[in-house]
This record gives sequence, structure tokens and C-alpha cells, in this order.
Amino acid sequence: MEARVLTAELGAHADRRVRLQGWVHHQRHLSKVSFLLLRDRSGIAQVVVGDGSTTRLQPETVVTVEGTAVLAEQAPGGVEVHDPTVTVVSTPTSVPPFELRRPTIDAQLPTILDHAAVALRHPTLRRAAQISAASMAGFRATLDGLGFTEIQTPKVVGAATESGANVFTLDWFGRPAYLAQSPQLYKQVMVGVFERVYEVGPVFRAEPHDTVRHLAEYVSMDVELGFIDDHRDVERVLRDVLAGMVATVEERVAPIDVRVPDEIPRLHFTDALRLVGAPDDEPDLAPAHERALGAWARTEHDSDFVFVEGYPMAKRPFYTHPEPGSPAHSNSFDLLFRGLELVTGGQRLHRFEDYEHVLDEQTQHALAGYLDAFRHGMPPHGGFAIGLERWTARVTGAANVREVALFPRDRTRLSP
Amino acid sequence: MEARVLTAELGAHADRRVRLQGWVHHQRHLSKVSFLLLRDRSGIAQVVVGDGSTTRLQPETVVTVEGTAVLAEQAPGGVEVHDPTVTVVSTPTSVPPFELRRPTIDAQLPTILDHAAVALRHPTLRRAAQISAASMAGFRATLDGLGFTEIQTPKVVGAATESGANVFTLDWFGRPAYLAQSPQLYKQVMVGVFERVYEVGPVFRAEPHDTVRHLAEYVSMDVELGFIDDHRDVERVLRDVLAGMVATVEERVAPIDVRVPDEIPRLHFTDALRLVGAPDDEPDLAPAHERALGAWARTEHDSDFVFVEGYPMAKRPFYTHPEPGSPAHSNSFDLLFRGLELVTGGQRLHRFEDYEHVLDEQTQHALAGYLDAFRHGMPPHGGFAIGLERWTARVTGAANVREVALFPRDRTRLSP
Repeated sequence: MEARVLTAELGAHADRRVRLQGWVHHQRHLSKVSFLLLRDRSGIAQVVVGDGSTTRLQPETVVTVEGTAVLAEQAPGGVEVHDPTVTVVSTPTSVPPFELRRPTIDAQLPTILDHAAVALRHPTLRRAAQISAASMAGFRATLDGLGFTEIQTPKVVGAATESGANVFTLDWFGRPAYLAQSPQLYKQVMVGVFERVYEVGPVFRAEPHDTVRHLAEYVSMDVELGFIDDHRDVERVLRDVLAGMVATVEERVAPIDVRVPDEIPRLHFTDALRLVGAPDDEPDLAPAHERALGAWARTEHDSDFVFVEGYPMAKRPFYTHPEPGSPAHSNSFDLLFRGLELVTGGQRLHRFEDYEHVLDEQTQHALAGYLDAFRHGMPPHGGFAIGLERWTARVTGAANVREVALFPRDRTRLSP
Repeated sequence: MEARVLTAELGAHADRRVRLQGWVHHQRHLSKVSFLLLRDRSGIAQVVVGDGSTTRLQPETVVTVEGTAVLAEQAPGGVEVHDPTVTVVSTPTSVPPFELRRPTIDAQLPTILDHAAVALRHPTLRRAAQISAASMAGFRATLDGLGFTEIQTPKVVGAATESGANVFTLDWFGRPAYLAQSPQLYKQVMVGVFERVYEVGPVFRAEPHDTVRHLAEYVSMDVELGFIDDHRDVERVLRDVLAGMVATVEERVAPIDVRVPDEIPRLHFTDALRLVGAPDDEPDLAPAHERALGAWARTEHDSDFVFVEGYPMAKRPFYTHPEPGSPAHSNSFDLLFRGLELVTGGQRLHRFEDYEHVLDEQTQHALAGYLDAFRHGMPPHGGFAIGLERWTARVTGAANVREVALFPRDRTRLSP
């Protein structure tokens, strides 16, 4: 039996017999012939089922097609398969709840999500998943090149102390335990071991609100690095990571319209407030402010990205490093991508005394294993976290992060 | 200020001024000089602190050292730093509970695990973590090269149906939910989308027993592929993945004494029972049997690995594909690595009718989103899962998987 040929390789096999395998994407019947679109992991090929054949296959039938590859200008991809023998490998028992051959899925989002197993076969959803995969690969490749070490840290933790709210509780052999809201404390500890670490993994937020930007479980791409001067060193690594993600998506999937400038423009929080006309004492940026800053970066700096630095300490977590000379502000930043927050990062406290100062005794006790790192010498360090689904949603233009998570989880959705 | 030089790069800077940064690994005082061992992410360098200096630094002090790189045969790595200026960046507040400079940590495992933040700085534990990181990289690189797509699937699920026992329950906005015991059902669904998928991520098993091989949370490296003939196609991919993992570890970390033969020897379960002298009706292999089979593979085939195929269906999960012509046996396998189970895999059922046959109605209802994939056409497929910690423990010779997990989780351990 001939080796299987992928639809994307068909052009290299012109005038030869080939064996294809995949799913019937669609079959279009004319009076004497039918055109069968065969979908496999590499793409879609047209198979011309000739005169007299009564082959009528319902969508998503799994088939093997043996036939001759023929160059044909009018065919998708410039090549099609003639004189086929079609063998059914697996027959569907139902017709899909929507037509996968349409440019977009003609159904409401809940229906699409309920039927993820089949909806994800649609080229648009597949492509988003491919962009996510390539983005992770680009993230890791960039950091490997910069001397980072990958880590895997626990998702079940004994103390809900990073941030008291929004934490899921579980039963751990009869004891309460919690789902990790981020790998923050562990990645800091690991700076003491490897200086530069990253992790790609799930994080869990018991967010009670339903928005198009929040999931209760999502994929966080986390970075932490030591021996920095301040948050600017962190921003530089983030810039390179974003450029690497874009490059890998373009290499593996398709061109995307995202340019990462060599120097991402930056604004101090106080200047950002002034720029958008907000009162000086606002503790945070509203979504409308973020959009205005995105427009400013686009107009003034021709950039999709802008750093806002120096967020008020009051709105940042306990490990945040203050801004030297301006203790109400922090050495932390948000990165806005097209006017939406994509990344949060910054410099962290690194002296044991600083943690003694900001944590009460009970919390110090609960975080003993974390504070151990600072007891035994830690360099100045900082890091950031990119939300994978937010990134992919922005890149693909999806309006809702649920459209680009394979099997999203929110307040009401726990399946499939 | 000169750019920082890593200790591993020191040889390339002979006779020049350099700036190093890292931790004081140890300082040895002689009558007139002291030898300071500086540890950074790349290794350890010797700094000769000369005549008259009173610098006495406790272990794990974070320092910047500026000095001259000098070739010196007797120094570790053949180069050391003379005429240094040592600046303290961060001072420890405690002495580590064990000496990191010793070849092994002189403490009991619970003490080591309680102080992971500092224990992981020991070269032996660091190296295990580097081997884990390189293994993940080799796993992904091999599969990327074979046309696989990376996926991230949810770790919180609405139904505890893959296997009823050993599942953790959590509170999901007032509803019960469960931690995923594996990405099995999701990776099968994704075969319908990408044909070939992999995932590296946490899995959760509420294992009530305390053994040196089990963790309640561990990292699973999962693979699933479609359009296979049977489990042998899965075994071939696994063989290539193992070879890729070994190659990447050797390239990035150090030589390891693991050879993956081109063709891994295999035994049918019934032949394995006979070989070890067990009764024909044993439903599983005992640890002693696995050790005997490991010895057989080593002696007869000069191989660290051996496949045992055809495990009884009775001991395999519901999605297991039976062996054609021998329905009491399965098209599934275990891979033994030096006499211990490292990987489980096999061919899965792919016809909707087969799942209707093996699942009761209630389970079919709970797994509707999974069964959707089979309703809409699935090719013959199979896959496997490698436990990262078990792999690293075997490669490093660690007696207990807890020694190679960064922050292990078991029945009693939830921190750090």
C-alpha cells in the first residue's frame, strides 16, 4: 500500500497515484460528477468523483481516497484528485449541528461551545488553536534562547494567601486546599535556583463576573528573571517574547497583522491619567482609558502596544516593588495591546525584611516555604504573565475569549 | 559598567576584567587568602580573595564580583578570578539548614522538601530540574517534527467519569466539580480536529497510598494520534519521542546513560506471564514481574526498555480497543524502563457504537461532549502518557519521585 500523502503535499505528487485520508468536509453534486472536499490535518483537497459513481457521503465521514493527483488550475490549491476509489473508514451517526464548510459557523456561541468536539473542526476555530500552539512555541523558543529554564509548579496549594478572593477550594484527603491563582510565588522561588524561569500552565480564578475577557481557568505564560536593575529589564524581555511569538505564528500558521516595535512606547501612570483626562487620584485605568491609550500609541507611535508604568502600590499585590523616590507608585507595568490589558508585570521585593514589613505574622507563617527563598539570598528580580486566550483573541479578532479556548471554563460552564 | 559575564563564559575572557553575579556557594579561608565559590545559573567559578581582605560572606549571599579572569590549571574549569572587588547585593538572614556545597544534601527527605526553596539550589537537585526541562523540550520538538499540534485542555471537569475512584472534588461556584485525572478524553476529541496532538500539563490523582512512585499531582506528557493501523503505530511514535528526549537532555544538560534502541523489544502479556513464571490467569504484572522483564530485556536485547502488549481488557479503561481475534486482551501496552512502568498507551475505540456498548446511559449522558466526537466521525487512533517525574527519577537514579518534583504533592504534603 502506498504511504499516505497529506493534502498539502499533493502538488508534489502530480500525475501519480496517491492515498489520502481525512474527513469529508463537503460533497457537492452536479449532474454527472461530484466534488468531494477532503479535510486532513494539513488542509483541504478536492476529489472529483466521476460519472456513474453513486458515492454520497455525509459530512465528517472518515475516508481513505486513492486516486491520481492532477494539476488543475481551477481547483483549490491548484491540484485535485481524479479517478478515486473512496473507502469509508468510519461513518458518522449524526449530521453536525452546523455546516463546517461555511465561512463562519452559523450558530450562537453557547451552541458552538456545547458542540466543541465538532465545532473545533471548523477552519476558523482550528486556526485560532493553531495560533495558540504557535504562540506557546514562540514564547518558549525565545526564552530558551535567553537562558531561561522551564518549570512546572503545583496547581494545588495549601494556603490561599496570594490574594484572598476569587480562589477555588477543594477537598485534599479531607483537608481544605486551593487551586493556584498563578505560579507567582513559585516562579519567584525558582529565580533563586535558575535566575531565569518560565512556565506555561493553567491558572484558576473564581471570577464571579461574566465578561468577554475573563475565564475561570485559563493558560498563563509566566516569566520571572533575576539580576535586573528594575522593571525596564523585564519589559525588554517581554518585548522580545512578543516578537518571538509573532514570528513563530507567522512561520507556522499564517501572517498576522501584529508589529512589535523595537522599543515599545511607555507612559507613567500619572501621565496616562492626564493624557486621557482622568482625575489625578484615580487608582486604576478604566477600559475606556485603556482604549484611549491604545489609540494614542497607534497614532503617536504607530504601535499596537504601550506600556503603562508606575501603577499605584495600593492596587498591586504585596510582592510589588515600589518606585524609588515615589513610594505610592510601583515599579510595575501593564502592557496594553490594541487598547486592552494583555500583560501585567513588574519588579518584585527581594529583601526578606521587605516581606516581613508587608505581611502580617499569620501570612508569614502560611508562606514560610516561599519566604525561605528570601531568607537565603535573592537578587533583584521581576517578571510578567501573558494570558494565552486574551492574546489569541486579540490576534484573531475574536470578540470573546471563549471563542479561542478549546474547552472554556466560566461561572456556568464546566463541560464539555 | 561592563556587561555581566556568566561563570561558564569565563574562559573566553582570560586576562580581562569581568563582572560576575551570583550566590556565594562557599568561602574557604586559608591563612592569607580565601577562595570564594560563586554560583550562577551557568555553573560555579572560583574567586581568589587576596591578602588582607577581611571579606567573610555567609553562604547564599548574593554578590557582584568584579575582577580579572585568569587561566589557572588548578582552578575548577581552568579559570579563576583574581583581584576582585566583591559587592554584596543581598544578605541572607539565616544560614541554610544544610550545606549546599556538599556532594549530597545531608538531611532527611522531609527536611529537604520543607526547605525546597534553598534545597533546589543544590547542584544535584538543580540538575534533575534541568533534565526535566530538557525532557519536555525534547518531547515537544520530536512531536512538532512529526506534525503534532500542542493543546491545553481544562483541568477542572464537570463529571468524574473517566475513572470514578481517586478523584479530587472542588467547589465550582457552588457546584461540585473535579480535577482532571488525565487529558485523555480531550486529547481523543482533538484527534478529530488535528489528527495528532500532545499536551504537557498537570494531572491529579487522589491516590490514598504513599509510595516512592506516586504523587497526587504530577506532570503528564500526553500524546494522541489518528489514522493508525493499531497500537504498533503508537509504539513507534513513543520510541521516537523517547529518543528525542534523551538527545535533548544530552545536548542541553549532560550525557545520560540511556540508550533507546531503534526497535524496542516487545512481549505479549501472556508470554510475559510465562517468562516470569506467573500463573496464566494473572490479570496484571506485579512489581517483581516488571523487574524480571526489565532484566530479560537488558540481557536478551541489550535494552533499557521493553513493551508489554495485550494487557487483559478487564484491567484497562473503557476506551481501550480490544485485540482483534482475542477479545479478552487489548491493543494496549505498558512500556517498562529498567523494570518499572513508565508509560501506558494503546489503541482506543473509535466507533460511536463501541462507546454505546461499553458505557451505561448515565455515563453516556455525562460524557455527551466527548461522545460528540465519535458521533461525527473519528479515525482509528491511540496514544500514550509519560509521567515526567517518573522519567526524571529513573534517568537520575533518584529513589523517590519526590526528589525530582520541584514542589511535590502527596497525601500529606501541600506546601511549600
